Amino acid sequence: MLNPFDIVIFGGGGDLALRKLLPAMYRAYQEGNLPEGTRILPTVREPAKQEEYVEMANQALQAHLGQGEYNKKDWQAFSAYLVPVVINVTEEDNHWDTLKSILDTEAEDRSRVFYLSLPPAVYGRCCEILSIKGLITETSRVVVEKPIGYCGKSAEEINSKIAQYFEENQIFRIDHYLGKETVQNLMALRFSNSLFENMWDAKVIDNIQISISETVGLESRAGFYDKAGALRDMIQNHLLQLLCLVAMESPHKLNANSIRAEKLKVLEALRPLIDDNVDKNIVRGQYVPGDLAGKLVPGYLEELGEGSSKTETFVAIRAHIDNWRWAGVPFYLRTGKRMKKRCAEIVVEYKKVSHNVYGEGVGPIQPNRLVIRLQPEESIQLTLMSKRMDNLEMQLEPVTLNIELSQKYTNTYYSDAYKRLMLDAAANNPSLFIHRDEVRQAWQWIDPIIERWQKKGSPALYRAGSWGPDDADELLQENNHVWFNAGEKC
Amino acid sequence: MLNPFDIVIFGGGGDLALRKLLPAMYRAYQEGNLPEGTRILPTVREPAKQEEYVEMANQALQAHLGQGEYNKKDWQAFSAYLVPVVINVTEEDNHWDTLKSILDTEAEDRSRVFYLSLPPAVYGRCCEILSIKGLITETSRVVVEKPIGYCGKSAEEINSKIAQYFEENQIFRIDHYLGKETVQNLMALRFSNSLFENMWDAKVIDNIQISISETVGLESRAGFYDKAGALRDMIQNHLLQLLCLVAMESPHKLNANSIRAEKLKVLEALRPLIDDNVDKNIVRGQYVPGDLAGKLVPGYLEELGEGSSKTETFVAIRAHIDNWRWAGVPFYLRTGKRMKKRCAEIVVEYKKVSHNVYGEGVGPIQPNRLVIRLQPEESIQLTLMSKRMDNLEMQLEPVTLNIELSQKYTNTYYSDAYKRLMLDAAANNPSLFIHRDEVRQAWQWIDPIIERWQKKGSPALYRAGSWGPDDADELLQENNHVWFNAGEKC
Repeated sequence: MLNPFDIVIFGGGGDLALRKLLPAMYRAYQEGNLPEGTRILPTVREPAKQEEYVEMANQALQAHLGQGEYNKKDWQAFSAYLVPVVINVTEEDNHWDTLKSILDTEAEDRSRVFYLSLPPAVYGRCCEILSIKGLITETSRVVVEKPIGYCGKSAEEINSKIAQYFEENQIFRIDHYLGKETVQNLMALRFSNSLFENMWDAKVIDNIQISISETVGLESRAGFYDKAGALRDMIQNHLLQLLCLVAMESPHKLNANSIRAEKLKVLEALRPLIDDNVDKNIVRGQYVPGDLAGKLVPGYLEELGEGSSKTETFVAIRAHIDNWRWAGVPFYLRTGKRMKKRCAEIVVEYKKVSHNVYGEGVGPIQPNRLVIRLQPEESIQLTLMSKRMDNLEMQLEPVTLNIELSQKYTNTYYSDAYKRLMLDAAANNPSLFIHRDEVRQAWQWIDPIIERWQKKGSPALYRAGSWGPDDADELLQENNHVWFNAGEKC
Repeated sequence: MLNPFDIVIFGGGGDLALRKLLPAMYRAYQEGNLPEGTRILPTVREPAKQEEYVEMANQALQAHLGQGEYNKKDWQAFSAYLVPVVINVTEEDNHWDTLKSILDTEAEDRSRVFYLSLPPAVYGRCCEILSIKGLITETSRVVVEKPIGYCGKSAEEINSKIAQYFEENQIFRIDHYLGKETVQNLMALRFSNSLFENMWDAKVIDNIQISISETVGLESRAGFYDKAGALRDMIQNHLLQLLCLVAMESPHKLNANSIRAEKLKVLEALRPLIDDNVDKNIVRGQYVPGDLAGKLVPGYLEELGEGSSKTETFVAIRAHIDNWRWAGVPFYLRTGKRMKKRCAEIVVEYKKVSHNVYGEGVGPIQPNRLVIRLQPEESIQLTLMSKRMDNLEMQLEPVTLNIELSQKYTNTYYSDAYKRLMLDAAANNPSLFIHRDEVRQAWQWIDPIIERWQKKGSPALYRAGSWGPDDADELLQENNHVWFNAGEKC
């Protein structure tokens, strides 16, 4: 069990804190994983907000927890962990001294987590003041959200700035997709089943698809999003991270250093996409008005309120990993907004059977498939061919086995990626966080794509409520593949 | 769809006909697989029985069909297919002419099946009279039940006798285990899933167990059984046949010739067990009184009513198949009477993961297992390791996936091995029947074991209601293996 710790949530009144971080901590409390004596210190800018904060947190939990999770008794106990503080992150005033004096009431070797739920632009300044005011102890860690920067250079600047005040092993770059139970289980499946780890390479796997589709449009992020686009917002971090976990070699141990070293090797082995290879292997798109679940929704420009934008809201990539394990296996990465269904999943499609012993009449023999779904629900499914059992003939049909949901649990454990990652940061376990080298390497692959796009072409248009531009389907047709759309081959 | 056919069931009033063959035909009728105009001709010895037969069949169906299967309307329609005839199989009298005249009312090219539900000793004589009386047409087939003979020589004699009157391609040697849906599905799984056929050799499989345990004792078969014993009664036919299907190479086509050729190759590659290798690799046992499901049941000698017998009621064998695919993989065969549970299953145990990346604390990592169960119910299960989903720690647990029962069917199809095999014989499809070469080869492997046992030693004793003699457990311990007893590792 973890020792009690302090976690300062900068931007405590913000969306992320109220929707995700507080519910995560409440769940940790409810299932007995929040050590007694732990303090959660959300920062707000004004003293007035400080007084209101506990009630605001109460409202937020009721709004954002799942059904049956919230109850008054647990809330009252949990609220005792909350210690709201006033901080204006860019102003070096005496509020920081107050924060320091609160933190210093506990022993110096207590875990101290600074969670920067802030725009990346102020990461550096916040860390600087933490340092100046003497708040950084040896057992302090800083948690920062990706994406960091707009390109390799700006990311490097931000990382360098943070690195002036924190050692690399104190810096926890979070990607909440990696905190999902199913991602954990993907690793468990690979490394604890000879049936899978022996069947995890180019000899037997035909192609791998990683797809994160959203139904939402710009929401309130217009300012940020139009500068970023899907490549920076999703591919550079979430999709490349998932790619790394799927494709990495077996680490000799499942510890942070080994996992991150293996992930880095995948990023290094990614075949660069430069110049016309960008055009050949990547489709970018932007949505126009369309029918989403029976409702006409506006296009990107309408939402943005501007007459033109080259920002991509959709990206599809055919990537290759140039190493022995994956030579010749296409990795298809895809993400988009305003798509037909919300879904995040990894589809591992095995090769067809090498020979059909049946001849005609048994029905199509589909390749085996392992589908790891992260959203909207978490699940892992294996699809096999089996004999139909309702007649005398030899007829085959696909059967889908649920690996993960086959066991029912009775306790109240709730799969929550932020909970896991916040507790991991408190426990000083960086396995699921991203090393600076990975950020650097990811940008090195992304930068030439951005450069090409700035020079040439513009996004293909797709209807809101579709699965993206036709070009994305054609990209796969070149290899005789088709996208799995929310588990279904289209 | 099959054409109408005639099936003469010799021994129509016998146990097998009433318990298995008639219910099989009734099911075929009920699900629409018995062509209109088909005739089922059970033979009885006396004219008195002939008159009673239809009512006897009615009673038998009510007694032996499953719940909800029997209904009056279907019975009345089905009874119209029944044409009982009088025949005394060893007497060449004019009843045979009557049978011939009945059969000859249909076209000469109609499928004519002679099902010999008789003791093997009279197979030859019965075929001889069929020939003399001119009942064997070009489209006639004879179905015979295994085991045939008491040793290679006697089996050869019986087969030679039948071969005087029927061509090999007219002779259908039945083994009802091969008619089970699950055995069909075992082949479907192997050859339509790259995940399995790529993982089906000595590189990845650790050991394979094939076990048929019965809870019954001698029943009414004392006379036969004490001369035969478990080796002849079960191993020589059922277990070796299952072994062949599990271990055979992929045939280029799933037709009768290819499958039988591949099965024969397995029998030829079985490492001979001769002289002291019999003692080292085989345990034979005989049950003594013991507790079966809370009841004291008598031992073999008590049931037999004799003071001594060396007949084995239990056999456990460590076999090896000396070819590239299976070099070094032990195949454990086991069968016994009066064992703790009734169960027939094939357990394919994969190798342990080659390296544990987790270190301590995740719990034991069990090897993957594919369990094909034929009795008491039919099922196919795959056991994998998965992450426990009820806490933050990385803890592994086995999850068991049902491959076969994952789909529910709504129609009335009933898995019935005899039904399939009788219809296959009518359709002239010998894929699931046993070629003479296989019988010969099986006995060639069995004969030296019998010879050794006649010369040396006697069965180890085991309690009724146990899993056999301790020696059988020790046999596996020599390879660091343990028996799966009805799916559970003991």
